[in-house]
Amino acid sequence: MKENVTRGFVGQCPLPINSHDTVQLSHGSGGKMMNDLISKLFLWAFDNEHLNKLDDQAVLNVNGQRFAFSTDSFVVDPIFFPGGDIGDLAVNGTVNDVCMSGARPLFLSAGFIIEEGFALAELQRIVESMKAAADRAGVMIVTGDTKVVNRGKGDKIFINTAGIGLIEHDYVVSSKSLVSGDMILLSGSLADHGMAILSKREGLAFDAPIESDTAALNGLVDEILKAGGEAVHALRDPTRGGLAATLNEFAAASSVGIRIKQDRLPINAPVAGACEILGLDPLYVANEGKLVAVVARDKSEEVLAAMRAHPLGAEAVIIGDVVSERPGLVTMQTGIGGWRIVDMLVGEQLPRIC
Amino acid sequence: MKENVTRGFVGQCPLPINSHDTVQLSHGSGGKMMNDLISKLFLWAFDNEHLNKLDDQAVLNVNGQRFAFSTDSFVVDPIFFPGGDIGDLAVNGTVNDVCMSGARPLFLSAGFIIEEGFALAELQRIVESMKAAADRAGVMIVTGDTKVVNRGKGDKIFINTAGIGLIEHDYVVSSKSLVSGDMILLSGSLADHGMAILSKREGLAFDAPIESDTAALNGLVDEILKAGGEAVHALRDPTRGGLAATLNEFAAASSVGIRIKQDRLPINAPVAGACEILGLDPLYVANEGKLVAVVARDKSEEVLAAMRAHPLGAEAVIIGDVVSERPGLVTMQTGIGGWRIVDMLVGEQLPRIC
Repeated sequence: MKENVTRGFVGQCPLPINSHDTVQLSHGSGGKMMNDLISKLFLWAFDNEHLNKLDDQAVLNVNGQRFAFSTDSFVVDPIFFPGGDIGDLAVNGTVNDVCMSGARPLFLSAGFIIEEGFALAELQRIVESMKAAADRAGVMIVTGDTKVVNRGKGDKIFINTAGIGLIEHDYVVSSKSLVSGDMILLSGSLADHGMAILSKREGLAFDAPIESDTAALNGLVDEILKAGGEAVHALRDPTRGGLAATLNEFAAASSVGIRIKQDRLPINAPVAGACEILGLDPLYVANEGKLVAVVARDKSEEVLAAMRAHPLGAEAVIIGDVVSERPGLVTMQTGIGGWRIVDMLVGEQLPRIC
Repeated sequence: MKENVTRGFVGQCPLPINSHDTVQLSHGSGGKMMNDLISKLFLWAFDNEHLNKLDDQAVLNVNGQRFAFSTDSFVVDPIFFPGGDIGDLAVNGTVNDVCMSGARPLFLSAGFIIEEGFALAELQRIVESMKAAADRAGVMIVTGDTKVVNRGKGDKIFINTAGIGLIEHDYVVSSKSLVSGDMILLSGSLADHGMAILSKREGLAFDAPIESDTAALNGLVDEILKAGGEAVHALRDPTRGGLAATLNEFAAASSVGIRIKQDRLPINAPVAGACEILGLDPLYVANEGKLVAVVARDKSEEVLAAMRAHPLGAEAVIIGDVVSERPGLVTMQTGIGGWRIVDMLVGEQLPRIC
């Protein structure tokens, strides 16, 4: 049955690949190397209108009904951390990717890759955590798969979730929809998740413990869409690569400039302290319970008020705006009034934070 | 936001878990230990009507339209093998799980977990293989995710795919739908995939090379449904655990007995030889391009003819029937006329064959 296997891959793969080139941790970090791998290998090979949009989910039209479909694998190390574990992270992460299209998440799949020798009691704890997270988010885990790999060929447990959501309105929420004049809203403090993982992994103890912000954001998205409707142009949860990656992806996808103000960015004191000690920029550190909303200016205050009325958006702020100048570029006014370019990281800041 | 995290898990987890119990390779092998893990831990925790059906896919009703949704992670070792690789296996496997509900597969997600140091040229080869397989099956890979784990914390590459299909008829194809009098049809030879993997892994050389049968079966399913319609009661691709696991799952889900005849089972000579040398029973070895169809007796010859007219069903045979006696039990008439019970394996026969 392989007669028709040959497919005309158009031209050479645009990612230059030499025989000795290998996958680096940076290829999974949310920075430029990952973007290159995705856009120059995966998009080149799989080439279709849905994937090419480079959103965190595909929006699919089936018999006139729009659906969102998304997947994420979770390889976080450690698997249990302050504020959560790999189980609720896997549920919340995919719920968030689905709902950032404006969809209502309905169903999840769960695929487990478990290392031989992993404690069944820990597996039970993770599974219970997934169920509790699914209940909180109002989704069902409806199909699954379990694989076991030999000792030393995995790392305790990896979990993939895929999710399906229903789009119940007729406007488009997409990274391609930003226009000059839009306001940039952030739902709360930055860098909590990444610093919680790093602190736990490195055995760092701070006076005030740093907890992951992992949470399902679909309830908050509901409130945003109720308040803003089609004035909500884009939504995204700034995970790997942090706020910097999300804003750069927005600016590139919509060919607009984005300006933010550093003194508007909410960062919890222990997180700011930990970042300083470790030499990390919180703009690049992952969040797992925050979102960025890009909203038409005339609706931005209403949306901000709606976000603040929701427990997961209580600290929401407007952090900047969208301009037509310098398309593709994200700039930040620093505390002392100067401007700096907020680029994407080329390589690796924090491996395996999700 | 964790105030409402506590959920009343009803009673103790029915899987007895002691503090020193660990996950074994057998928990992923398709046998009794995997069934116990799924039914006594995952179903207990996630408990919902869709998952509880224990089919290889969930059938979801959204606004009156039925969808199939399925996921599989692929951890096959080696990743390149005669007849295929982890890429086309990952596409075909999920296409097959989706279409065994009678759905037309439409969209796939792809989640990659790659070990640091994996050759980019091999990744490219796998991605091209996935695309070619998706084209052959008529599905699109519309959303994806890439994670990289540290060297020694994975094994080259693991791929998860999830798939969505549309059910365009109004009958139910399910492991619960077998009734006494149904005929059991098998689309072709047994054990090719598992023995191809094992031969390659163990460096065994046979005169006639053994090739994996990996293939997308949705075209064959189309023909089966066209010929049989609602007389097609159940479909399944006998992967992990082989034909024995599939028939046992059918017998248990429908509370019926199943009888098959050993001399009807097509097994290629090199595969039969390799099984004998290695002491493996082909009934328990995985297939990746075969299906079992359970069809009402009066339509079974028509369906058989339709299968034989399709390249992937050219060697289709009727291997047995469904009876009301001894519900839950699968029995086989051996070549010399006696009967034996075909049980599920308790533990591990072949790890990491998919």
